[in-house]
Amino acid sequence: MAASGAPSLPRTAFFISDSTGITAETLGSALLANFPGMLFVRHTIPFVDSVNGAIAVSLDIQRVIDSGAQPVVFTTVKSADIRSALDVPGSVLVDLLSGHLTELEVALGTSRSEQLGQFHGVGDIDRYFARMRAVEYAIEHDDGQSGRALDIADVIIIAPSRCGKTPTTMYLALQYGLLVANYPLTDDDFPTDGLPGSVNRHAAKCFGLTTNPLRLSQVRHERRPNSVYSSLAQCTLELRRAEDLYRRNRVPFLNSSTKSVEEMSAVIMQSMRLRS
Amino acid sequence: MAASGAPSLPRTAFFISDSTGITAETLGSALLANFPGMLFVRHTIPFVDSVNGAIAVSLDIQRVIDSGAQPVVFTTVKSADIRSALDVPGSVLVDLLSGHLTELEVALGTSRSEQLGQFHGVGDIDRYFARMRAVEYAIEHDDGQSGRALDIADVIIIAPSRCGKTPTTMYLALQYGLLVANYPLTDDDFPTDGLPGSVNRHAAKCFGLTTNPLRLSQVRHERRPNSVYSSLAQCTLELRRAEDLYRRNRVPFLNSSTKSVEEMSAVIMQSMRLRS
Repeated sequence: MAASGAPSLPRTAFFISDSTGITAETLGSALLANFPGMLFVRHTIPFVDSVNGAIAVSLDIQRVIDSGAQPVVFTTVKSADIRSALDVPGSVLVDLLSGHLTELEVALGTSRSEQLGQFHGVGDIDRYFARMRAVEYAIEHDDGQSGRALDIADVIIIAPSRCGKTPTTMYLALQYGLLVANYPLTDDDFPTDGLPGSVNRHAAKCFGLTTNPLRLSQVRHERRPNSVYSSLAQCTLELRRAEDLYRRNRVPFLNSSTKSVEEMSAVIMQSMRLRS
Repeated sequence: MAASGAPSLPRTAFFISDSTGITAETLGSALLANFPGMLFVRHTIPFVDSVNGAIAVSLDIQRVIDSGAQPVVFTTVKSADIRSALDVPGSVLVDLLSGHLTELEVALGTSRSEQLGQFHGVGDIDRYFARMRAVEYAIEHDDGQSGRALDIADVIIIAPSRCGKTPTTMYLALQYGLLVANYPLTDDDFPTDGLPGSVNRHAAKCFGLTTNPLRLSQVRHERRPNSVYSSLAQCTLELRRAEDLYRRNRVPFLNSSTKSVEEMSAVIMQSMRLRS
């Protein structure tokens, strides 16, 4: 990451939760991303749901303070008693939830429930089934393995090898329970009209990925060093052909080279109108 | 979910971001989970990174207000101008980031960078490679498909069919770049000592899943209705055998019946000391 301001010794960030720690980690990391000049050693500590548990954690925080650094402690813990046990002099405690909960209580005109927030809880068994089905569908239809059941696909991601089809497919399946197939474009897959093979009937569901030749060559090199497959010439050729194919068939596509799996997924859902 | 307070007509919640919307959705949903008595229709609107974009969104918010409901608008947008364009009278705007950013600026003694926070950005190409490798490893080693390369697995999840191995495996691979294999326990897989087949050499890396017989029967029924496989008797037997196997071999395990994929993943990482 580009440094803004003076670079500094790594600091320590704790993400402390009474549940999985995912919310604390997600928001805390999003906040720290605004200070690219600073390095942080990160510790996520989930399931801190008792004062005794918090006291144990406070000793870890104290150790960092004793080492001379000022740790930043992000917490989503809802109990005020547990939070105060985490508030160690010499550290910075950032309370990510309870302030907003108070805002919401006022706005909604009702008080929060006393149970621990269970938004990651299985609670919604339908969502659980949907995710399980979606992940299994994604595995079955990874890399064009199966042309079956493409009719029920929510989206079919097409791209040359190593453009990011598989992780993006899995992310959409896991996070959103979408049925996502993906299909690799190989040298034999550039018909003069239409889309190749089993996806041609489903052109309206297709979304294309491309990347930069240099990046693709670098990624392919990881798998097959010094091969035609990973050569810059081959990568350049395949990407040009793929982009032509997308344009000819009006397949929306994006360049994955500067995008994370999360960003690609968000763009695909947006573009294919897959968001509720 | 259990209702706290009077049940109400569904309200509308917007999650509005200048980036992917993941942080807004994650924290906003975690906050709403504390009001289980209230139903919310949810809209995530990513990539709102201009005042004009925000004005377009404000029209959607206005439509909800005109319908007589008071929408809750969660935003992680960093630009004050864009945020104020989102602040529509009659709605509740919950600013999830900028207040905490100000706290952090004070605590860290430095000002935030002006670039958009890119914590979901590909920025870290090593993480991108790690996730891609991990997802491909998970696919290759799903459901005991391959005994190869178990030596490099970070963890091997073992369980009877339908206890949640595959989605949990995929989540750990995608979110944390961990190399996770999984191995199904079938009727032939209950040796009198040790662990079955290819995983026996890797007992120290194994983590077991179990569930409740009724829940398992329900989940299996989805796949094969009215089969021996989905019968309560068969499910009860397989789960008892699996739990015996875990105990005999000191394999840590958890009951997945009341846990989400996120919770199982957090417990596994905790228990197997896979957190950095």
